[in-house]
Amino acid sequence: MKSSVLLVECPDRPGLVHGITGVLFRLGVNVVGNLEFVDRASRRFFMRTEFDGAVNGAELLAAVRAVLPEQAEVRLSHLEPKRVVVLASKEHHCLADIIVRHLFKELNAHVLAVIANHATLEPLVRKFDLPFHHLPHGELPREVHEAEVLNMVQRYRPDYVVLAKYMRVLSPKFVGQFPARLVNIHHSFLPAFAGARPYHQAFERGVKVIGATAHFVTDELDAGPIIVQQVVPVDHTHAAEDLVLAGRDVEQMVLARALRLVFEDRVFLCGNRTVIFD
Amino acid sequence: MKSSVLLVECPDRPGLVHGITGVLFRLGVNVVGNLEFVDRASRRFFMRTEFDGAVNGAELLAAVRAVLPEQAEVRLSHLEPKRVVVLASKEHHCLADIIVRHLFKELNAHVLAVIANHATLEPLVRKFDLPFHHLPHGELPREVHEAEVLNMVQRYRPDYVVLAKYMRVLSPKFVGQFPARLVNIHHSFLPAFAGARPYHQAFERGVKVIGATAHFVTDELDAGPIIVQQVVPVDHTHAAEDLVLAGRDVEQMVLARALRLVFEDRVFLCGNRTVIFD
Amino acid sequence: MKSSVLLVECPDRPGLVHGITGVLFRLGVNVVGNLEFVDRASRRFFMRTEFDGAVNGAELLAAVRAVLPEQAEVRLSHLEPKRVVVLASKEHHCLADIIVRHLFKELNAHVLAVIANHATLEPLVRKFDLPFHHLPHGELPREVHEAEVLNMVQRYRPDYVVLAKYMRVLSPKFVGQFPARLVNIHHSFLPAFAGARPYHQAFERGVKVIGATAHFVTDELDAGPIIVQQVVPVDHTHAAEDLVLAGRDVEQMVLARALRLVFEDRVFLCGNRTVIFD
Amino acid sequence: MKSSVLLVECPDRPGLVHGITGVLFRLGVNVVGNLEFVDRASRRFFMRTEFDGAVNGAELLAAVRAVLPEQAEVRLSHLEPKRVVVLASKEHHCLADIIVRHLFKELNAHVLAVIANHATLEPLVRKFDLPFHHLPHGELPREVHEAEVLNMVQRYRPDYVVLAKYMRVLSPKFVGQFPARLVNIHHSFLPAFAGARPYHQAFERGVKVIGATAHFVTDELDAGPIIVQQVVPVDHTHAAEDLVLAGRDVEQMVLARALRLVFEDRVFLCGNRTVIFD
Repeated sequence: MKSSVLLVECPDRPGLVHGITGVLFRLGVNVVGNLEFVDRASRRFFMRTEFDGAVNGAELLAAVRAVLPEQAEVRLSHLEPKRVVVLASKEHHCLADIIVRHLFKELNAHVLAVIANHATLEPLVRKFDLPFHHLPHGELPREVHEAEVLNMVQRYRPDYVVLAKYMRVLSPKFVGQFPARLVNIHHSFLPAFAGARPYHQAFERGVKVIGATAHFVTDELDAGPIIVQQVVPVDHTHAAEDLVLAGRDVEQMVLARALRLVFEDRVFLCGNRTVIFD
Repeated sequence: MKSSVLLVECPDRPGLVHGITGVLFRLGVNVVGNLEFVDRASRRFFMRTEFDGAVNGAELLAAVRAVLPEQAEVRLSHLEPKRVVVLASKEHHCLADIIVRHLFKELNAHVLAVIANHATLEPLVRKFDLPFHHLPHGELPREVHEAEVLNMVQRYRPDYVVLAKYMRVLSPKFVGQFPARLVNIHHSFLPAFAGARPYHQAFERGVKVIGATAHFVTDELDAGPIIVQQVVPVDHTHAAEDLVLAGRDVEQMVLARALRLVFEDRVFLCGNRTVIFD
Repeated sequence: MKSSVLLVECPDRPGLVHGITGVLFRLGVNVVGNLEFVDRASRRFFMRTEFDGAVNGAELLAAVRAVLPEQAEVRLSHLEPKRVVVLASKEHHCLADIIVRHLFKELNAHVLAVIANHATLEPLVRKFDLPFHHLPHGELPREVHEAEVLNMVQRYRPDYVVLAKYMRVLSPKFVGQFPARLVNIHHSFLPAFAGARPYHQAFERGVKVIGATAHFVTDELDAGPIIVQQVVPVDHTHAAEDLVLAGRDVEQMVLARALRLVFEDRVFLCGNRTVIFD
Repeated sequence: MKSSVLLVECPDRPGLVHGITGVLFRLGVNVVGNLEFVDRASRRFFMRTEFDGAVNGAELLAAVRAVLPEQAEVRLSHLEPKRVVVLASKEHHCLADIIVRHLFKELNAHVLAVIANHATLEPLVRKFDLPFHHLPHGELPREVHEAEVLNMVQRYRPDYVVLAKYMRVLSPKFVGQFPARLVNIHHSFLPAFAGARPYHQAFERGVKVIGATAHFVTDELDAGPIIVQQVVPVDHTHAAEDLVLAGRDVEQMVLARALRLVFEDRVFLCGNRTVIFD
């Protein structure tokens, strides 16, 4: 018997939890876990309820909507593995981590393909019997290359696109195709060191911690909603290239955690912030 | 308008959240936050609901009990500051931290008195205009000294007793007077290095992290339910006495966090484990 | 027998460690610990040698200089407690931590006085029998108030000035009086959230870690060399005011660590970065 | 031009650093980094000097020995990749991490083969074109199976043997073949939860942090010198099986760090403790 997840988001008002749990109780499902949150700044209510038991989805959704404000967003997920395309460049660590976890079913995802603007990682990807598409940017105008990439991505009709150290900035046109479905790993604790060469910026500034940030991509570079952040301590013995090395482990860890949360339907957007039920 | 907290603990069964939130909804109180948890191992349900609004306590409790299994434990707290007695010996850092936080009302507590088996900390305590009782153990038989301490503690009728680096082992007789109301800070990440001189044990073992553990005291030494634990990295340059110094900050931080949680009615016991709603 | 510390900084060249340790060996002192570092970016050599044993300071310095390049900076410290003035505003936690550590001689410092632009913390400071000077800014032009503060500070001829949550921006004129002797605690992991209200900025950005930074103050706001940084994880349940509370503990911890390092002569400047021998 | 490393260990006495750096200076090599440590408890001196430049190894060693006490242990390493055999059972995460890092030359090692008592991980290992030997224990007496494993290991004449979640206890006979050359990852912050099923022990004890420990294996189970330890926070929502999952990432991170340190000749033994020059 598989678990399902009910996801609710609406303006707050009294009685919401009572109403929603009443519907589930009357339908006789077995609630495994229930997490709710009211964002005081926006007066918005979020709830994620995991439950076991067969249920008529349309009936459940209708009954839940009946106890909620009109503007409520209600989703029912059966936690099927998400369809995912990964974009990469030359660095292997995040990509390797994802495809190893994929192989051992640690991510709730089907990795459909890897697309890269360099051929470097093809041998790695081939070992895992996954499609690898090398789309070199070469002399192509930026928008032409990006259109090729977008076209290839869309062939797979993915639920999510993951930028696993894909080192090209994407245009609003590309980003707009995947609202809250495009996850990036940035190699700094944002908002510090947005943009290019964050470890070199960090070295120049003489920081004593470096970090990584997994976030949804939006039109503004490195400014989308943050999903996971983590840091590691560093000191004066770390030259810029040592920071790059020290950062790899935290990058792959942060991205893996973010993907797990997103693919298990644990992440809500709340303006430019995230509400995460873990 | 003050906040109140409803605390519920009972065997799990379907519909509990629906039932409890229904009572609160019908009484018209404004729920600020709601946290619940089912412990799978014991099939036990825990819930903490913080709400604003005047309410007839007896009426609320009766109505909540009516929707719960018979064995349910239900409490209503108005989050009044807890009455607290602190026991100490010679080390100042945890005690100083508590009385500074007390002065600035950062702990939800009234520190009623400090009792110590050494006079070392009397000048510190006097600065803060708190009663200080020096009860030296001297040549006294252990049980006689402990009875004196117990007697002095009980004069204050405290809700909680805090052992802020009190370096005497307490007998089951003493401990039995304060079930789940006696909080200790132990200077290791338990269960590693229970008992005496944990930092020296840690040095001998060559560990690369040290830590501190705040826990409720039970009959078995350093084996009670853990409330908060935290560690700090160390390395070969730390001699035993350096570990002692390095541990001070984490001890006072861990104890302060545990006290905040306990005094805000955020801690449930679940066998020898704790459920903490933070 | 007290420890002394030899501090050397110069352009790197072969044989420096051999030369310096040779001088100490011939003078018959007992080296307790020896730490050296070459910054590859600037090709600069740093060394801190702690030793026991009576020694003629002038003779030692001359002998060391003789084996070093001309531009070498060589200092001999006998680790006397540093003379310190603390500036504060209304927030108590960093100041209270400093004066408790001072009372128990945990910082290698004499706190000479506390100067504040509010009277809030006077009762706390008086408990510890330290001079407290309330210099309200009131309607005063910024430069007039700052001159009053500077004047009061200088009366104490401090080695270091500590900004323990002093909430006024200091002019280059003030800062210029205390090169590498003015330590500030900023309540964010710089360079993120420089300037005013960092916790509110952090909330708006939806970060998953917050932090604190202790740094030397330079002319550019919040841009001086970083001494210590640390972070704490946060999540969507933290409103801006919760971030403020969560940040207090890390602020006081970070400042205390930085002061210990600075007052024990463990911090070198290397451009806008610090080299720290701990 | 490759780096070399001089490793010295001997009873402490004045002038050691001066003497050793003098030899290197006279031989005209370029010292890249120099780390030394005196263990106060054992009065033992340790030094690791990394240098560039061609040098006659025998001449260097003789010259260094001439300035040291008779009992000194002196080694010269050219940082060639270490020859490594990995033992595994069914769990993939540590093994996968090692062989991915191996593929991308992130460990200073040649992985010669993987030996396992289960066939589970064969497909993974084959993807990376490494020899995989399945030696099932089946009905074999423990010592017979172990002898088979030992025999297979020794065929590869490895410098180091890594237990990457190999779930069989090794006898003193096996362990004795690889003094300070047998590295294990234990899934708890030792000495807490030595032995079997540490995560289940941790759940029962209700700890708020779990961790992992990489250590050299000695005759006493889980009691050898610790190389790296790290922890992750957990709470009441983690059932025993959740702790297992939460621990995986920290296990593989801790093992990878330990292997990097060991394979780069950064780890000295000091009794049952380690001195690590990183």
